[in-house]
Amino acid sequence: SRDLLADPAIDVISVTTPNQFHAEMAIAALEAGKHVWCEKPMATSQADAERMLAAQRASGRVAVMGYNYIQNPLVRHMAALVRNGAIGAVTHVRVEMDEDYMADPAEPFYWKSEASSGYGALDDFAVHPLSLLSVLVGLPTDVMAAMAKPYADRPARDGGRRAVENHDIANVLLTFEGGVSGVLMANRSAWGRKGRIFIQIYGSDGSILYDQERMNEFQLYDRAGNPANHGFRTVLTSGQHAPYGRFIPAPGHGLGFNDLKIIECRELMAAIAGEPAHVVDFETGFAIEKAVHAMAESHNRRQWMSAI
Amino acid sequence: SRDLLADPAIDVISVTTPNQFHAEMAIAALEAGKHVWCEKPMATSQADAERMLAAQRASGRVAVMGYNYIQNPLVRHMAALVRNGAIGAVTHVRVEMDEDYMADPAEPFYWKSEASSGYGALDDFAVHPLSLLSVLVGLPTDVMAAMAKPYADRPARDGGRRAVENHDIANVLLTFEGGVSGVLMANRSAWGRKGRIFIQIYGSDGSILYDQERMNEFQLYDRAGNPANHGFRTVLTSGQHAPYGRFIPAPGHGLGFNDLKIIECRELMAAIAGEPAHVVDFETGFAIEKAVHAMAESHNRRQWMSAI
Amino acid sequence: SRDLLADPAIDVISVTTPNQFHAEMAIAALEAGKHVWCEKPMATSQADAERMLAAQRASGRVAVMGYNYIQNPLVRHMAALVRNGAIGAVTHVRVEMDEDYMADPAEPFYWKSEASSGYGALDDFAVHPLSLLSVLVGLPTDVMAAMAKPYADRPARDGGRRAVENHDIANVLLTFEGGVSGVLMANRSAWGRKGRIFIQIYGSDGSILYDQERMNEFQLYDRAGNPANHGFRTVLTSGQHAPYGRFIPAPGHGLGFNDLKIIECRELMAAIAGEPAHVVDFETGFAIEKAVHAMAESHNRRQWMSAI
Amino acid sequence: SRDLLADPAIDVISVTTPNQFHAEMAIAALEAGKHVWCEKPMATSQADAERMLAAQRASGRVAVMGYNYIQNPLVRHMAALVRNGAIGAVTHVRVEMDEDYMADPAEPFYWKSEASSGYGALDDFAVHPLSLLSVLVGLPTDVMAAMAKPYADRPARDGGRRAVENHDIANVLLTFEGGVSGVLMANRSAWGRKGRIFIQIYGSDGSILYDQERMNEFQLYDRAGNPANHGFRTVLTSGQHAPYGRFIPAPGHGLGFNDLKIIECRELMAAIAGEPAHVVDFETGFAIEKAVHAMAESHNRRQWMSAI
Repeated sequence: SRDLLADPAIDVISVTTPNQFHAEMAIAALEAGKHVWCEKPMATSQADAERMLAAQRASGRVAVMGYNYIQNPLVRHMAALVRNGAIGAVTHVRVEMDEDYMADPAEPFYWKSEASSGYGALDDFAVHPLSLLSVLVGLPTDVMAAMAKPYADRPARDGGRRAVENHDIANVLLTFEGGVSGVLMANRSAWGRKGRIFIQIYGSDGSILYDQERMNEFQLYDRAGNPANHGFRTVLTSGQHAPYGRFIPAPGHGLGFNDLKIIECRELMAAIAGEPAHVVDFETGFAIEKAVHAMAESHNRRQWMSAI
Repeated sequence: SRDLLADPAIDVISVTTPNQFHAEMAIAALEAGKHVWCEKPMATSQADAERMLAAQRASGRVAVMGYNYIQNPLVRHMAALVRNGAIGAVTHVRVEMDEDYMADPAEPFYWKSEASSGYGALDDFAVHPLSLLSVLVGLPTDVMAAMAKPYADRPARDGGRRAVENHDIANVLLTFEGGVSGVLMANRSAWGRKGRIFIQIYGSDGSILYDQERMNEFQLYDRAGNPANHGFRTVLTSGQHAPYGRFIPAPGHGLGFNDLKIIECRELMAAIAGEPAHVVDFETGFAIEKAVHAMAESHNRRQWMSAI
Repeated sequence: SRDLLADPAIDVISVTTPNQFHAEMAIAALEAGKHVWCEKPMATSQADAERMLAAQRASGRVAVMGYNYIQNPLVRHMAALVRNGAIGAVTHVRVEMDEDYMADPAEPFYWKSEASSGYGALDDFAVHPLSLLSVLVGLPTDVMAAMAKPYADRPARDGGRRAVENHDIANVLLTFEGGVSGVLMANRSAWGRKGRIFIQIYGSDGSILYDQERMNEFQLYDRAGNPANHGFRTVLTSGQHAPYGRFIPAPGHGLGFNDLKIIECRELMAAIAGEPAHVVDFETGFAIEKAVHAMAESHNRRQWMSAI
Repeated sequence: SRDLLADPAIDVISVTTPNQFHAEMAIAALEAGKHVWCEKPMATSQADAERMLAAQRASGRVAVMGYNYIQNPLVRHMAALVRNGAIGAVTHVRVEMDEDYMADPAEPFYWKSEASSGYGALDDFAVHPLSLLSVLVGLPTDVMAAMAKPYADRPARDGGRRAVENHDIANVLLTFEGGVSGVLMANRSAWGRKGRIFIQIYGSDGSILYDQERMNEFQLYDRAGNPANHGFRTVLTSGQHAPYGRFIPAPGHGLGFNDLKIIECRELMAAIAGEPAHVVDFETGFAIEKAVHAMAESHNRRQWMSAI
């Protein structure tokens, strides 16, 4: 309730309400001088997201989005590898996000298939890969999307069938700064996929692969050394990848999904303390929103759109 | 030489010359009453490919394309699974073909980067995935392509640098009959990939995965049985997958790339004998050519194109 | 300090001191009417472990060992599969535990290589696989062990070299009840292995594979259905495998190593509350100790030993 | 027939008859001045194998065993890596050979379960891993074996049940020169395994892994470079691994099981021509036989035996 905003003992407001309330609550909190930790997506419209960003800028407070996948120590490490040129200049990027919670055609129609809930896979889902791209290689500048409905309708709860209003599948051609090409694919009706976010980053000197379903390892190919021994190396998380060592002293013992949220919380506190922090702030959060809306617009117009 | 065409002892002409000679030679052979076994791609222009198809139709002879990947017993088996509804109705398809023979930016310019050699990854490469799609799920009806150059220029042999004229990367949004969506990606500059053709076929009841770099296995997910034990099953080739048993009695011992060519040859002979055969005939070969040219056109116009 | 034992507000004593103090502290706690949660190994001698078990029996208190690996929801699930006959009668078992913290021959001699710290890989390590065997298939009845030193000596901290006093490698032939055969291998000098515990359980109707380095998946082979589709299924953790759902609602998102300790704590509390619980109690803990000492004795005598 | 031996046009005799005829035929061929290519195992008794070796020595002819797995270009490459110190000094070795052709307990008794056919997994099977060990790290000097019967009896063809006379499972502790430890496991009743020969070679600077079911790749771990990027590298076969390039110009396209026999034949011809050749000659073949018989004897006596 609004009483919280008046309480001087409270420094941070965590917004985890349904998406349509994010804008109002985050803006009120920022205006009351609170820091904000907001679950994704930022808002249900680009205009709202823009107002949230404006409120953050005006407030001078810290406002971050709850994109937890970027907090994996291996994701940070891969970002550093890319940044430091370990695979040379990036030449191509692919990212796939797939789950199967909408895969069963016999599953009755529910709110996830309503247009009011969003575009479907694109904003329910593809925002996560975009948050990862934002830290790994940057966000795309141009997009060409095609969304698809694997099932045109579903059993209605009151009998009969009801037309599905949004898209469980989204496929997007991407262009990044400097003309680098990429593809983003999201499918929430992909049988067998449970938490897959598969990223392929190709560079002029090597390649990086990562699959969120095996979040404690990534693969690195580099072309140094004897060609007879070249291959993708499967690297297990360890104390070499901060802040893994804060959780477990021994290498290869594995973090879990929930540990990522713990790291995210710690990073939020670092940001508030004015220290360097790994967060998706409202600037980047808004850029992700813009990309998503550009993709949806691209699908509707069947043409390339600027995403920036 | 043309003497071969007059030799009544010769039944079949195998065309393995550079691409620009395929049309002339195949047509001459068909007109001389010979069967034709033509390496891919069919021709360097769609018009030539169309003339080849016309010649085949007029001749009544057997004319097949040398697409060997379709001959893998597991590919046949996967095609049968799809056809027989093992994964239900197909809902989404992805195919990636990646190698790294153009990945080194220091590699000097050579004919593969000349426009006269073709579009680049698209026809050098993507024809193979298309041949696989043709047997697994059918060819796309509409395409939206974006090609990319990872390296704008390369060292010229005579010093200085020379602009790359075609595209080592091709990304294509696909629509199949009935509105099923798909994506095709081809990259001949993907460090670490050696012979990857990774196919993902999602259906309403399950999924199929296949990677040509591990051509003796595929993965099948089906949603039957106890959900606590659901998962992708890694199936090894065996006598259950004809004609593996003609090569090796024991399961899981593995065929090689060259064995596929042997099977292809056997299938050609079956086709000539009038028996049922697994071949990419000139009808399908021409359909593949049309799809490739539609993709290139789509890239140039930056818009969706019909591929049929 | 001993004051804790007199404090009536304290119900449970957690013993995490160096191994040589386990016996004294656990026995004192039990005699003071406290429940005990004791880190592995139970004690430094079999006699001490036996006294601890006697103290627990006399006290009527709950006393459990801190074997966390057994708490993985997938381990419980695999145990249920074995128990319920999903793979038929068990015919063969292999378990390997490998890490590389002693793999570097240039690493100076430290206490882990002293005889006073124990046998080496066997008690530093192999107790974990034994705890897993205890819940999956039961403990072995007979053992034949061979331990080995990959490095006879190591750099001494004060210069020169010092002889390694225990064994970084242990290999053990196992016999289980009913004559089922098995092998246990432990190696703490295995370059590249970070937290590997690879278990293979073969049965008359199928097989189970598990690797602790990928603790969120296991593999199941069963021979039901169409042989053309037989294969090892990679099953990802999900709400189907209790208590995963208490941590994460979505399947395949992954638990971490530390989550296992949380589950262990919850199970301890269940045991204290008199509810059914998944714990390694002092009975089983003592049986594991006996097996380890039998293995060491077997190595010394170079002959088969009873482990029960 | 014996006429072949008198035919001067014949240089080489290939012995592929049932095992009990190997000795007589190979010796006759050698005495007739022919080279010999003998399928494994060498003979049904150690005495016969010894006579074969003596005949070869007396003849000065080339006599090789048909161990095809060693002909994999990757096996040769791994052997060179070990020899050249790429993983330092070998510290530990494990090899597993598993198939499932005896896994079904309902399969009726047939000759493979008769004592007269041999020890079971040990000679039916384990000779292959031994041939691989012979080229990779050398043969063991001492062995301690335990064989097991997963099924005590099987349905008899004439009704009732018949006792199984040999062992489908063999587990063997190994000692190599210099005290290096190892384990050999063979199981022909392992559901789900089709052609598995999994080899783990640990050294003081790295490790090598290989699985015959994925014969076109191996894994290499070395501890050079940045520890944050250490991991097992999956290396695909390529022209870097002779003689792969004689089969396929492109890397990663894969050889098959039958290609290994082609290479074996070529190596035999090289040996006959007096060139360096990769073969298992009768010297090594006999050493393998001795190891197998020592293992069987060790099982019977339940004690360590010398294998040399």
